[in-house]
Amino acid sequence: MAVTAEWIAVDWGTSNLRAFAMHGETVLAEAQSDKGMSQLEKAEFGPALMTLIDGWLGAGVTDVVACGMVGARQGWVEAPYGTVPSAPLTGNAAQVPGTDARVRVFVVPGLKQAKPADVMRGEETQVAGFLAKNKNWDGVICLPGTHTKWVHVSADEVISFRTFMTGEMFALLSGSSVLQHSVGEGWDEAAFEDGLGTTLSRPEAIAAELFGIRASDLLNATPAAAGRARLSGLLLGAELAAARPYWLGQNIAVIGDVGLSEVYAKALKTQGGFATIADCQEMTIAGLTAARNLLG
Amino acid sequence: MAVTAEWIAVDWGTSNLRAFAMHGETVLAEAQSDKGMSQLEKAEFGPALMTLIDGWLGAGVTDVVACGMVGARQGWVEAPYGTVPSAPLTGNAAQVPGTDARVRVFVVPGLKQAKPADVMRGEETQVAGFLAKNKNWDGVICLPGTHTKWVHVSADEVISFRTFMTGEMFALLSGSSVLQHSVGEGWDEAAFEDGLGTTLSRPEAIAAELFGIRASDLLNATPAAAGRARLSGLLLGAELAAARPYWLGQNIAVIGDVGLSEVYAKALKTQGGFATIADCQEMTIAGLTAARNLLG
Repeated sequence: MAVTAEWIAVDWGTSNLRAFAMHGETVLAEAQSDKGMSQLEKAEFGPALMTLIDGWLGAGVTDVVACGMVGARQGWVEAPYGTVPSAPLTGNAAQVPGTDARVRVFVVPGLKQAKPADVMRGEETQVAGFLAKNKNWDGVICLPGTHTKWVHVSADEVISFRTFMTGEMFALLSGSSVLQHSVGEGWDEAAFEDGLGTTLSRPEAIAAELFGIRASDLLNATPAAAGRARLSGLLLGAELAAARPYWLGQNIAVIGDVGLSEVYAKALKTQGGFATIADCQEMTIAGLTAARNLLG
Repeated sequence: MAVTAEWIAVDWGTSNLRAFAMHGETVLAEAQSDKGMSQLEKAEFGPALMTLIDGWLGAGVTDVVACGMVGARQGWVEAPYGTVPSAPLTGNAAQVPGTDARVRVFVVPGLKQAKPADVMRGEETQVAGFLAKNKNWDGVICLPGTHTKWVHVSADEVISFRTFMTGEMFALLSGSSVLQHSVGEGWDEAAFEDGLGTTLSRPEAIAAELFGIRASDLLNATPAAAGRARLSGLLLGAELAAARPYWLGQNIAVIGDVGLSEVYAKALKTQGGFATIADCQEMTIAGLTAARNLLG
């Protein structure tokens, strides 16, 4: 059945592109490709988008609202960062010039923080979506992923935030370091909890504990599933220890992939932190809907 | 001028092979290749060695004494670990079977530690060399590299040791992570010292500070030389914080590449630790000489 979009929501990250045919706040259809920002030259963004959305376009001009790395300097159009403290959506969406005449494309700006220096692109839209669905919510939002963000929110503004490279470190260490031989498929909950507890109580230990995963395999034939869970626990424990000023005694929401969000929520629970989990894609769409409502 | 070796010392690591034609404790000639353990199948070790040393062989049988990853399970012959506390050289060198008839090849065993699980191969020989040249020396020996070792030595024995993946983390983060765009050639001493001080005083901060290198580049166009020095400082500070129980109030010796050893020594000096630097190759040869003297 053919779908005609009233408008189109786009989540355009470093490695993926997802588009949603929308009617008001309702998703009519979705499509995705691996044409992430990192694989595209300037001239390739337009065709990559049109391939996905062409079938959803009606007779008039359709608005497209996008968030994520598509708005970086190396993206399609640079959407200059807003500066915290700030509402997650600044209202200054950047319009892409010279697009196919059937669409107007707007890119949501990211947020920057002067000190300590930090940036986000995409997460501000998820935060906006969460706040649109949770009125008057104050607390801390954790957005786990390749670069996990911890975001302090108060009175509908982002007050401050901090980025942790935990996801990327896990990928590098498990895939490209000497630990690759000792980290494999599967999961060992006890090994995860032991790793988590180790670095939560002594975060400096991580520098020494990482090689222990390899040594434990060599000396004790520790299974690769335990190695993987322990690596995950050590890295997450170090992150939670460093992020403690963010989450201690706060309302906490986690927005991310379901599996990863549950790992964070469970880890926080061991420290007396109770986190609600919100669906990542739902928050992105709610945020893009809010961004669309801010368009002139 | 042709050289005939009385015996041959070999330092055979993961990525390199170095051979030395010896007379007693004196180096007559040296040769090297990139035929490290990681690039060789079992049957290729013999030819890789003979290519380097063939010209040094006399009429009789020449002893070859090797240390390093060549003795790992995936190496030429497995030389089972000694267990600490132990003299750095256990005397149980493993003879390689089925070599060229003109040589007898012995591989020095590494050391293992049951708890916390840890292993070394190659560094035990450098420690033995250092102790051979520094009688009755008690203290801590730091061997910086891809996997830096901190080794507690007392009464000519290795009491305990700990491995830090600092060098490998630096390589992965500077070469393969999002930080690669913000870390380049050159050095900025102030950025190094600031990074070092940050994680020495708050080691848990490393999880958050790493992405700050990227953000600082994006927001402030921080030069890539400063990014590189800061990354180095942050990683080394975290290592020194974790290794503090090893070096605090101890005699310290650093055995490694000259440049890297000086970075460690300078960093320790900021914490009131005074380290002497010993030449890496000289210690390896002294250690292999001691290992030869233990042969039956």
